[in-house]
Amino acid sequence: MKSKIGLVVGGSGSLGSQVVSVFKRNGWKILNIDVNQNDKADVNIQLSKEKKIQDQISLIHETTKSFSTNFDSIICTAGGFDMGSIREATLFEKYERLDKMNAQSALLAGHLAAHYLGEQGFICLTGAASVFEGPTNYAFAYGITKSATHALALHLSERTDIPASSTVCTILPTMIDNEANRQAMPNDDKSSWLPPEKIAELLKAWAEGENRPQNGSFAKLSYKNQCVIPEFL
Amino acid sequence: MKSKIGLVVGGSGSLGSQVVSVFKRNGWKILNIDVNQNDKADVNIQLSKEKKIQDQISLIHETTKSFSTNFDSIICTAGGFDMGSIREATLFEKYERLDKMNAQSALLAGHLAAHYLGEQGFICLTGAASVFEGPTNYAFAYGITKSATHALALHLSERTDIPASSTVCTILPTMIDNEANRQAMPNDDKSSWLPPEKIAELLKAWAEGENRPQNGSFAKLSYKNQCVIPEFL
Repeated sequence: MKSKIGLVVGGSGSLGSQVVSVFKRNGWKILNIDVNQNDKADVNIQLSKEKKIQDQISLIHETTKSFSTNFDSIICTAGGFDMGSIREATLFEKYERLDKMNAQSALLAGHLAAHYLGEQGFICLTGAASVFEGPTNYAFAYGITKSATHALALHLSERTDIPASSTVCTILPTMIDNEANRQAMPNDDKSSWLPPEKIAELLKAWAEGENRPQNGSFAKLSYKNQCVIPEFL
Repeated sequence: MKSKIGLVVGGSGSLGSQVVSVFKRNGWKILNIDVNQNDKADVNIQLSKEKKIQDQISLIHETTKSFSTNFDSIICTAGGFDMGSIREATLFEKYERLDKMNAQSALLAGHLAAHYLGEQGFICLTGAASVFEGPTNYAFAYGITKSATHALALHLSERTDIPASSTVCTILPTMIDNEANRQAMPNDDKSSWLPPEKIAELLKAWAEGENRPQNGSFAKLSYKNQCVIPEFL
């Protein structure tokens, strides 16, 4: 059987590295785009944190194109979180950082999909349940930049620039069980936190066409009975 | 009668300069923040286009604070438009430029409101009817950055960081009758295009408390019978 071909934006993060591992275990060829390398990926495009994406886009296109021009799936797992109100002094620094992590990463995934996604391709972006369900004034820059991701998904799912047979889906995780969240909330009950590996297994199934949601879906992810449950909003 | 005090972000643009003129004509004291000066404003904070907002924020606070710490109205009329799909080569340059013009300008207005807006204050942001009503894949970066403005308005209207008695309103203009649009669409019928001066007159009324919409409103603006008509979405 021919290997399926995937691109992960943010494939070195807590969710992304699990996506790379699960997809690799299932025989996929994976290109990872991130500021850090992931040795499990077949090829890495290591972005510079200091440079703008527009100053690295030629290199990104070159390496992506030589990896494949017919991806089965493009997944963006990049993202960042930070607390802080609209009032606080570091608002604009936070906005710049989170815009790059949340909105521009999704923009990159969509841009590459417009060039290299194949027929019946699967695009998955990572939004946030908390933002989708209501204002998050305690994390203002996070809320605005994740809202931009959601708007991007709505635009992309019109499929004006990607194959008409492709599917755009946005996952809206509740709390993910990763190191950063464990350190930030050491005393919380973690039994309902989403294990990244199990999210990755769900995405693998959807990417392979099993039980794939319809185009334009927003899937809130919860964790119950040791199972990741998607709820479509 | 004591003068009312207003802040305009983008008060040198086609809509903003009319806002400054109309408010001044009605006795307001106006602080303008823009990349160009507007001589009709009482005080200008001239931003550098080349610098990030975070690198100019101390100066912005200093000048704003010395102008007033109790504004009656803060209005953001800054904004930009550009065509272009998610596929095109200059996507990230466009996104950076429009993010600054559409999202960060509104973020600045909200940030200053959180510090200096008075009781019963009026905040007005400028969104876009085309974006609010549906994806704008022909102007992708514009759509995402104006969506961020809309999300920002929703967050701000929770009033966690501004007076509980204040009002947040977002105007959603259809086509504005300005030089840029006349040049881009020379052959279009302009009878339904919104004259900036008439929008400014409507905003002046709302800012002075006349017929002011409720907090959290999104007002689509159309032009009929030589009158700007708000429709609440």
